[in-house]
Formats: sequence, structure tokens, C-alpha cells
Amino acid sequence: MSLLVVGSVALDSIYTPFGETADALGGSAVYFSVAGSLLNPVKVVGVIGQDYPVAELEQLAARGIDWSGVERANGESFRWKGKYSYDLQSRETLETRLGVFATFDPKLPESHRDAEYVFLGNIDPELQLGVLSQMRAPKLIACDTMNYWIQGKRPQLMELLARVDILMVNDTEARELSGDWNIHRAARWILARGPKRVVIKQGEHGALLMEPDRTFYVPAFPLEEVFDPTGAGDAFAGGFMGYLARSRQTSPDSMRRAMVYGATMGSFAVAGFGVRGFDTIDLGHVLERVQMFADLTHVPLAERIE
Amino acid sequence: MSLLVVGSVALDSIYTPFGETADALGGSAVYFSVAGSLLNPVKVVGVIGQDYPVAELEQLAARGIDWSGVERANGESFRWKGKYSYDLQSRETLETRLGVFATFDPKLPESHRDAEYVFLGNIDPELQLGVLSQMRAPKLIACDTMNYWIQGKRPQLMELLARVDILMVNDTEARELSGDWNIHRAARWILARGPKRVVIKQGEHGALLMEPDRTFYVPAFPLEEVFDPTGAGDAFAGGFMGYLARSRQTSPDSMRRAMVYGATMGSFAVAGFGVRGFDTIDLGHVLERVQMFADLTHVPLAERIE
Repeated sequence: MSLLVVGSVALDSIYTPFGETADALGGSAVYFSVAGSLLNPVKVVGVIGQDYPVAELEQLAARGIDWSGVERANGESFRWKGKYSYDLQSRETLETRLGVFATFDPKLPESHRDAEYVFLGNIDPELQLGVLSQMRAPKLIACDTMNYWIQGKRPQLMELLARVDILMVNDTEARELSGDWNIHRAARWILARGPKRVVIKQGEHGALLMEPDRTFYVPAFPLEEVFDPTGAGDAFAGGFMGYLARSRQTSPDSMRRAMVYGATMGSFAVAGFGVRGFDTIDLGHVLERVQMFADLTHVPLAERIE
Repeated sequence: MSLLVVGSVALDSIYTPFGETADALGGSAVYFSVAGSLLNPVKVVGVIGQDYPVAELEQLAARGIDWSGVERANGESFRWKGKYSYDLQSRETLETRLGVFATFDPKLPESHRDAEYVFLGNIDPELQLGVLSQMRAPKLIACDTMNYWIQGKRPQLMELLARVDILMVNDTEARELSGDWNIHRAARWILARGPKRVVIKQGEHGALLMEPDRTFYVPAFPLEEVFDPTGAGDAFAGGFMGYLARSRQTSPDSMRRAMVYGATMGSFAVAGFGVRGFDTIDLGHVLERVQMFADLTHVPLAERIE
């Protein structure tokens, strides 16, 4: 089924203890679509400047990514520069240059308005609402946000929450949004504001899916080598939504499977710089890792004690 | 089967945002045995001073805890005083008075030397080795340790590692022991030093069981109320070893089940001050929560995508 993502298409300069990249393909919509397109074609809505390396985007089109909804505006592309600590546990933003992203106002091409699975990447909640108003009959809407909007655009964000099926944020964002440091109470607070489900990403500690009457937990894959955590959360979202779009489902069981596909994509994302972690990954690798995830938490409870 | 724990029997004074206790029953052997005895009788070896509230220990004996191996020495009991931060994420030790624990030299009564499942709580590795030399034919030996011994008694600790089946530590200790901040590499480093299995406890993020060719992960139970994290790790060990002793197993599948029983006991431990979290818990509650744990990570993978 048709899958749409709206988000940033950026150029990232990243320093980690293992190396660095300059002006590499990045941004939420890029990570989402590179991961998601392993499972289902992805239509992207975003904006780039005149300086963006379009040839590199075009190479990725072969994976099943439709860039026709990405506007090319006058000005510079969105650039982010960040540096990770020696253990990758924290990062410092060295520079953010919004460029054409500062005035981004998503306009969906006619061909994109029928999309059934929609992911609203982390942009101004007013713009996220604007995207929804352009959609005809979305079947499942998930959205991300960040501390900047939680602080600065709370009323608009609350309006958005009432209109989405799934909020997908990290633990810090869930705490800030709810004002509660307990992650489970924070998730319950969010559920009461509209979304039917909340996904809370916890980086190396996995991710939580909270529904009104049931909770699911998927760990992060046990990796002995992590090169670059950038984009892991957006790759998770791409795997999650890509799986649902491919399987044409929105059932509770399919949501659990989607969590595992999300965690799988997150584990590939951190294994290389930028989107490089996906260079050699095909559907076979994805399915293999999904099975490994299932084994990682499998509890052989057949033998009960009495 | 017979289950033995050697460790501290202490009096804890704990301050949390939700209240405080003074001179409450605590120590690794107490938490271990209160949790473990829900599954299998536990023999305790430890030391207390003349001031210890023995009547309170005797009340716990009814649960199936044999205190006859606890020596009553001249002097004060081991006391620990600590204060937790508002979100329970960190704690500060306000006071440690070792008392009679400073000269503890475990002597196993004749009746304790045949124990088949043995947990060596966090004490000097020389004393842990001394306990092993008094055992006749232990079937499964697990041990804990802490940063103090990792720094100060490394040769003795390495000698111990070569003689135990399972090392059970928290993530900080695993990192310090191995000198590696990646928890999975740290576990592999430890495996190469002797133990057949490593359990790494990660508090609110669950626990990891690493074997040479397979990894298992159990999350922490999603609790909306946590009152006092003290003793959760020792309660985990009690559940883990208690399950194995009760089921008379050491198979890989039984180890995974033991991890879930451990996590279950950890979740009861944090729900009340000191050992109070176990006051109202019986085997029925344990089995119910074990099933909830199995559901928490259950991946319904039957429906494959192609």
C-alpha cells in the first residue's frame, strides 16, 4: 500500500570516535525512506536547496523511493553538524543551518494525497496538521515531534495528537511532553490525549509500544560495534511503517511485528555512517534479523513450575 | 534442590522521594532469600551483630529461609544508609558501617556443604573462593561482585571467575571489569575468563543473559510506581537461582526461564521499601507475573512477509 513520509532532507556532518562524514545525505525523511523502502515503496515530501547533491538522491530512487514530492527551493539545504561522545551515549550539536527548511511549507502533489500510511516526521506541528488537511483518506497516521515544538507549539501539538493514530517519540520527549519522568505513566498520559498507540524509542535500550490495555517491548539488537547512532529513530519509523504498509495491516499483532521491523532497521542504521549502514542490506537480511530478534526475547515457558 | 546464599545481612536506612526507612532488614543475602524462598527453600550464610533484630529474621524463617548458618558475632551489625534522587535514577551512599561484616569469614555448617545451587553474594572474592573450597559437589555456582573488588582484588576475582558457572553483575561492573564500555563486548570478555554464562543487570532497562553462541534479553516490568530500587539485583538473583533449584535444571531453556523469574522478583522488590514489596506476594502472584513477562515481549511472527 502507499506509504508517505514528510520530513527533512538534509546534509549531515557527523563526528564519532570512529571517523567523520561531511555533507552526507541525512534528515528524517531520508533515513525513514531508505529503511522503509526495503519493505514498501516510499513517497517523500520535503525541501532541498540548490546545492543538494540530487544525483545521490536519484541513485536511491532505484530502491523504490519517489522523490517527486521534494521541492527544490532557492537557497541552501538544511545542514546539521554534530559530535558524539567516546561511548556514543551523548552528542553535541555543533551547528544547525536551516536554510530552505526554515520556510518549508509542505504541498502534496495530487499523486501523494491518496497515501494510506503516513508518517509525519519531526517538523512544526502546524505544518504536520497542514499535511493532514491535504490527505484524502489516510488509513494510519504516525507522527514524531521534538522538545522544540513541545515547548514552543504545545497547543498545535495537542491538536495534532488528537488526530493521529500513533505518536512515536524518544523517552526524553515523552517525559517532556507529559511532565512525568516515569516512562510508563508518560505513555499513559499521551494515550489519554488522542493517539491509540504510543511508541517510545529508548536508543540502545530498545523501544516500547504502549496500548491502552497492553504493553510490548522490543530490545535493541545486541551489537558489539556501533558506528553512528544518527538516524536510528527515523530508520525505526521507516521499518515500522514500511512493514505495516507492505502487510496492509493495522491489527495489534501486526503492530508488534512492526516494532521488530523498526528495531531491525534501527540496528542496520547504527552499523554505518549516515545511511551507509543500509548499502548492503536487502530483504533477506531484514527477515533474517527479524527472526534473530524473535529469538532474543523468546521465553520457552512450556515447562511450568508448580 | 538445596539452595545456598552467602552474603550480607544488614540494616538499611533508605531515603527515597516517597518516604524513608531506618534500620530495616537488608543486605544481599536477605533480599536474595526473601525472593528465592518463594520458589525453593534457601539456606543463608552470613554474619550479624548483637544488635540485629533477630525476631524479624525468625519471622521470615516461616517462608522457608534457614538462618542457622548466620553467625552472631560480637559487635555492631552492618549498616548502610543511602538516598535516592527524585527520579530514582541515582543514589548517594550517606554512610557505610561494616561492623562485624568487616571480619566476616564464612564457615559453612556441615549441613550446608552439600548444597547444589550456590549464590556467592557480593563479598571479598577471597572469601567467595573460601566458600567454594568448603562445598562438596555444587551443581551450579553463580556469583556477584562490585567495583571495590574489581579494583582491589582483581587477581583473586579472576581466579574466582575461572571456577563459577555464572557471573551476575550490573552494567557498570561489567564495564569496569572488562575495560570495555560496549556491554556486549564486555560480556564476551567475561565469558572468555571462565564463566559459561554472564548475566548483566541493567536496572529499569532489564537484564541480558549472554552465552557463547546466543543472547537472551528480558526487560524490566513496566511499572508506573517504583518506590525503592534497593535490593532489586539481589532479588533478581534470588528468583533466578530459586527457579533453577526448584526445577532442578541447568539447561539453556531453563536459564531463559530463570531470567524471567529473576526479573519478576526484581519487579516485586522495587514496589515497596526494603523487603516490604514481598509482604503480600505468593507463588500465584509470581506465576501470574511470569506470564505477563512472556506476553510483554511475545512476537507473533507466524505471519511472515515475503
